[in-house]
Amino acid sequence: MNIEKSFMEHGGDIYTEGKFKGIKLLDFSSNINFLGVPESFKNNIHNALEDITCYPDLKYREVKYRIKKYLKQGITEENVILGNGAAEIIKLTISTLKKPCIVVPSFSEYESVGKNYCEEIVFSPLNEDFSYNYRDILEKLKECDGLIIANPNNPNGGIINKVAFEEILDYCEENKKRIIIDEAFVEFVNDKNQSFIDKCKDFKCLFIIRALTKFFGMPGVRFGYGVSSDMEFINSLSRHQIPWNINTFAEIAVKSVLRDEEYINNSKTLLEKERIYFTQNLQKFKFIDRVYEGYANFLLLKLSSITGEEIFNYCISKDVLIRRCRNFRGLDDSFIRLAVKNRGDNNKLLEVFSDFESN
Amino acid sequence: MNIEKSFMEHGGDIYTEGKFKGIKLLDFSSNINFLGVPESFKNNIHNALEDITCYPDLKYREVKYRIKKYLKQGITEENVILGNGAAEIIKLTISTLKKPCIVVPSFSEYESVGKNYCEEIVFSPLNEDFSYNYRDILEKLKECDGLIIANPNNPNGGIINKVAFEEILDYCEENKKRIIIDEAFVEFVNDKNQSFIDKCKDFKCLFIIRALTKFFGMPGVRFGYGVSSDMEFINSLSRHQIPWNINTFAEIAVKSVLRDEEYINNSKTLLEKERIYFTQNLQKFKFIDRVYEGYANFLLLKLSSITGEEIFNYCISKDVLIRRCRNFRGLDDSFIRLAVKNRGDNNKLLEVFSDFESN
Repeated sequence: MNIEKSFMEHGGDIYTEGKFKGIKLLDFSSNINFLGVPESFKNNIHNALEDITCYPDLKYREVKYRIKKYLKQGITEENVILGNGAAEIIKLTISTLKKPCIVVPSFSEYESVGKNYCEEIVFSPLNEDFSYNYRDILEKLKECDGLIIANPNNPNGGIINKVAFEEILDYCEENKKRIIIDEAFVEFVNDKNQSFIDKCKDFKCLFIIRALTKFFGMPGVRFGYGVSSDMEFINSLSRHQIPWNINTFAEIAVKSVLRDEEYINNSKTLLEKERIYFTQNLQKFKFIDRVYEGYANFLLLKLSSITGEEIFNYCISKDVLIRRCRNFRGLDDSFIRLAVKNRGDNNKLLEVFSDFESN
Repeated sequence: MNIEKSFMEHGGDIYTEGKFKGIKLLDFSSNINFLGVPESFKNNIHNALEDITCYPDLKYREVKYRIKKYLKQGITEENVILGNGAAEIIKLTISTLKKPCIVVPSFSEYESVGKNYCEEIVFSPLNEDFSYNYRDILEKLKECDGLIIANPNNPNGGIINKVAFEEILDYCEENKKRIIIDEAFVEFVNDKNQSFIDKCKDFKCLFIIRALTKFFGMPGVRFGYGVSSDMEFINSLSRHQIPWNINTFAEIAVKSVLRDEEYINNSKTLLEKERIYFTQNLQKFKFIDRVYEGYANFLLLKLSSITGEEIFNYCISKDVLIRRCRNFRGLDDSFIRLAVKNRGDNNKLLEVFSDFESN
């Protein structure tokens, strides 16, 4: 196996490096819905081939209408801003802050954008059990102009306690501090009430980031969006966007998958089953100290007596890619993250882990 | 016909407005290759459906390799920066300038970005016959830090005289002023030597913008790129880009169409034939004062004794959309622009114009 050990800021790069060289890896490092691309999108792709000879709708009217219908909770088209992936929305919003408080460990992109565009970054670390430290967040917010927090959080999959978060919401609304909640994985959570979309109407300080990427299994389509009832903020963000930032395939995807109840329900049911199965079986390994309780489609593992490097290299030698966590702020090489995949793939990984343990 | 007369900053909006309402218009307002989406891309679309469950290559290695092979002239992968449509590249580059000189009339996006991000904009108007005023450009550049010029220019289709432009090139290279040449339409020009790509190696001041949009008939795919041998500049632009800004379908498109010699040659041959035919027949109408010589896939027309509004409304009543030019800086409602389409469509428009004249 001769995979270049390139710098993996986003985890996925060794994979594309592998793809580029024609090597097929079983990828547990990317957190994509294991059901793959919804049939409802595949069946509509021929429409895109007709439509790409025209520019997309400059105002993306139908796309916004579909999002409104999907989110419900009193959200209107005007509350929605569309992005070339969640990455665009993350950049647009975080770059408006002078001194954000970022809850860590989390998706590295928040910090990357912050370093590029903000004057200073303040970090609020999760507790040792990876629950949010609400008290610390509130304290840090006093010197910050905004909060960036993920729900569920990556890499551990923990979710915000909506009751405990109320004080933070009230404080930020009152003191005009922005709360950016990245809900890229929220659809994986079985409790429908986990999202903060329902709070948008009453809290102008709230800005929610969503995407098709993870839950609808299509990172390649590049589609994300932001939701807020603060129209002044939405409009000020829009002024920095380029025209036609959403491609026609993404438009078709939105129109297809957000109404695909079957895919949505299947995903939730199957994922939960697999997450339980995977967790139970992973806990049996002696080299795994702990599998943290997660609500998304991935699991954070604390290793015991071995390093991430050792298990990573062993997996790569078996054409399996896992995610080392040492480049997450606050984590070290004693953590790894695994995507929850279908039963066959999960078993394949469990087998590789068994081989590793018995070697 | 009940099409909302919405503001059409980009020409195409009334079209999408129409599409949104289910009305099918024959569109002479958009300048897209009339051969439509290349078969070579359509045939590869199933690859995209497999690939979209993964993130695109973060470094877009194969895409850049294909562009290098396509452009030749000593261009390397490192000289190329990719954009979510040419729109992203336009924004990235123009926003680096404090006081750009924009040659007008031209694509409105240059001015939009300039107004948003530059301190001041200086305009260099084309001559009355729509040739470039090289003397004026050189003069204006003395007080500017960069030039934005299109080759061919939209809406007239005129091309830069490369000999006459040499003095400007030398001046800018010597005085560290940026030259941004938008070559979105250059592939339509029959003379292969019309592009300034060959000058990139020797002139670091040069930055060329290209796209798949126009020539390869796929605005919906959103793919543009910039080329320069000034690595410091390319790298500074990249720092403002989001990760995965190019979607998987655009990746597949690049890999498919840039090697599609048949499509490329057919496009050039057929377009030239149709442009000559269309020009000759348009010149016969009494209400058309002049058809300007153009080298791209569109023609600028000066009207005689009627307004753009009159002919536009008449065309709309026949489900044909043409481009009024009053919102181009320096033009008024006595100009219209027409795309050159296939023989059948061109004849349909000529027929509508005949009906208009005999009414």
